[in-house]
Amino acid sequence: MKVGILGGGQLGRMLLQAAANYTVETYVLENDQYCPSAHLCHHFTKGDITDYDTVYNFGKQLDAITLEIESVNVDALDQLEKEGVKIFPTPAAIRIIKNKIVQKQFYKDFGIPSARFKITNNKNEVASHQDLFPAVHKIGEGGYDGKGVQIINSLEDLDKAFDAPSVLEQKVDIQKEIALIVAMDSKGATAIYPVSEMMINPSLNLLDYQISPALIPEKVLWVVEAIAIKLVKALNSPGLFAVELFIDKNNEVWVNETAPRVHNSGHHTIEANHSSQFDMLWRIMLGYPLGNTTPILPAAIINIIGEDNFSGDAVYEGLEEVLKIDNAFVHLYGKKQTKPGRKMGHVTILHNSYQDLTHKANKVKQLLKVKA
Amino acid sequence: MKVGILGGGQLGRMLLQAAANYTVETYVLENDQYCPSAHLCHHFTKGDITDYDTVYNFGKQLDAITLEIESVNVDALDQLEKEGVKIFPTPAAIRIIKNKIVQKQFYKDFGIPSARFKITNNKNEVASHQDLFPAVHKIGEGGYDGKGVQIINSLEDLDKAFDAPSVLEQKVDIQKEIALIVAMDSKGATAIYPVSEMMINPSLNLLDYQISPALIPEKVLWVVEAIAIKLVKALNSPGLFAVELFIDKNNEVWVNETAPRVHNSGHHTIEANHSSQFDMLWRIMLGYPLGNTTPILPAAIINIIGEDNFSGDAVYEGLEEVLKIDNAFVHLYGKKQTKPGRKMGHVTILHNSYQDLTHKANKVKQLLKVKA
Repeated sequence: MKVGILGGGQLGRMLLQAAANYTVETYVLENDQYCPSAHLCHHFTKGDITDYDTVYNFGKQLDAITLEIESVNVDALDQLEKEGVKIFPTPAAIRIIKNKIVQKQFYKDFGIPSARFKITNNKNEVASHQDLFPAVHKIGEGGYDGKGVQIINSLEDLDKAFDAPSVLEQKVDIQKEIALIVAMDSKGATAIYPVSEMMINPSLNLLDYQISPALIPEKVLWVVEAIAIKLVKALNSPGLFAVELFIDKNNEVWVNETAPRVHNSGHHTIEANHSSQFDMLWRIMLGYPLGNTTPILPAAIINIIGEDNFSGDAVYEGLEEVLKIDNAFVHLYGKKQTKPGRKMGHVTILHNSYQDLTHKANKVKQLLKVKA
Repeated sequence: MKVGILGGGQLGRMLLQAAANYTVETYVLENDQYCPSAHLCHHFTKGDITDYDTVYNFGKQLDAITLEIESVNVDALDQLEKEGVKIFPTPAAIRIIKNKIVQKQFYKDFGIPSARFKITNNKNEVASHQDLFPAVHKIGEGGYDGKGVQIINSLEDLDKAFDAPSVLEQKVDIQKEIALIVAMDSKGATAIYPVSEMMINPSLNLLDYQISPALIPEKVLWVVEAIAIKLVKALNSPGLFAVELFIDKNNEVWVNETAPRVHNSGHHTIEANHSSQFDMLWRIMLGYPLGNTTPILPAAIINIIGEDNFSGDAVYEGLEEVLKIDNAFVHLYGKKQTKPGRKMGHVTILHNSYQDLTHKANKVKQLLKVKA
């Protein structure tokens, strides 16, 4: 079976590591020929994943396609789907998720709890919805990793608002920020991974570290899982989905957003669950039974982020010290160049004590630095 | 760091899957450009690993080299080592292991228990050592996967004996056949994996299935571990070693042979141990601390072998049924062509009950067939 991946970053890299357990022939489309995935596939094509002809020509030779980033040319995927190429997830599901306005409307239409919102086309329209303040302003298309999101607490923040089609949503009074990976196969069978709890670094708006399974009351967990399953069933597409949610201070659960692909919040599944999110997506695409999502041990993920004030050839400080930690697993993405805030890798730690996990996660953050 | 692998089979493939966790730049030398490793490295070189110039030219651009098969040109590795390339294991250790005569003499010299033996140069010399019968005749160089080994029970078997420099050793009255992986880093620190117990298919003389950790008395285990550590320390080389041993019917322990590399008997470590044998070898080569060899759950390995009477494009029967088994992990090596007895992949099963493991291993053997 010939399967293509749109995008060649770290998600593609880890997908390709898992692919080599099966007989799949792998193809990658990506503009950067030195990307983390380029050397791990059977066939690398240099090209723009947002261009119709490039995606169509790449895809027409394949049996199936998946993606590692939403900003792809969905029109080309529509056409390929008509011609019999299987797309994971379907172009229809990608369209819903790709545009944050459509995504929010989808939650509303299907009764999936999500913060109250208005669609805005410019800054002036933001000013007319002060009833939603303090609010989060999210650009409709093109946001990624904290870019394309602004906090609008009052009219004083109005200059930060987007002058483009966007969603303005009431800020949730967050108690916990969580995520979970849901897999759905082509027959509609689902599997869910344990919930992860995220700690966010406010200055970069990037994940600081993450613990899984999250420590949340069982009744809240049931709600979270029911919402996530409902959401994926409503998307009505085989594939792997990362659902990000908030638990507010009243223990109410709200969907924040969904990614139609393998996701940073599931990286620990490589070591912490019997079947990783990457293995799971291959099982779905190859038509195999779903894998086992049981956790082996509680896990923490620490992202390895390019240090401030360093740009250029990446140098990793503290790697040896980190690898001395029992059950610390390092994943470096093979990016030659670092820059401030760039995701360069991650470390997963396994331990049966949560206190120990937190302690070790902080130790890794202190030890491991990417400089140039 | 630039690291080369001599040979591009399934061992190389699994090494390369693990390599992508680190920033290593990978090179593979192998005659078959469609081999299981070819598409997973940064740089593939088509060439003969037994040829001096080919190995030397491949290696002189590299920081380190390892191998996935012993039949390499060791003279070239000697020269490369002199020029500063690090070889894992050292050419001296490879020389000892590569020739079964030298290997047996090494055990004798270092007081490592191994069956009584004589060196033979032809069939007539075999006839003059009837005191060793029933015996095993092993050709000095070129044996692999059961080839190059003959059982000589009596003079009637003499026509099976090798007319080449070989070792004739007394047959051990085997109670159990076991193996364990030992890792040694460049500072001499060692780590050992739990012992595996092998079940051999007598007709192919290939591994049938394997259980780990082996069910052996603790006192015997201590002896096994002590012998394995002594052996690797005597080889005096960093690297990863698979030590195969017999436990005889008196619970005495005898070394059968050693492989200077990652090994079939350690494949379950991918899912069954926190740090796999493949991860461990990268840690050693990259100068990182040794990994954690603690078992997660007991494991069984079932090799997927080409069925008798089928040669040609491989077709896998029963794959879906096998993947339905909880914690059954399939590894297909991506070999296009099958032939009788060819290793096409393996399945690892994890379960906390040994009875269940054995039951599932048999089920996998019945379900999964490679035909053409």
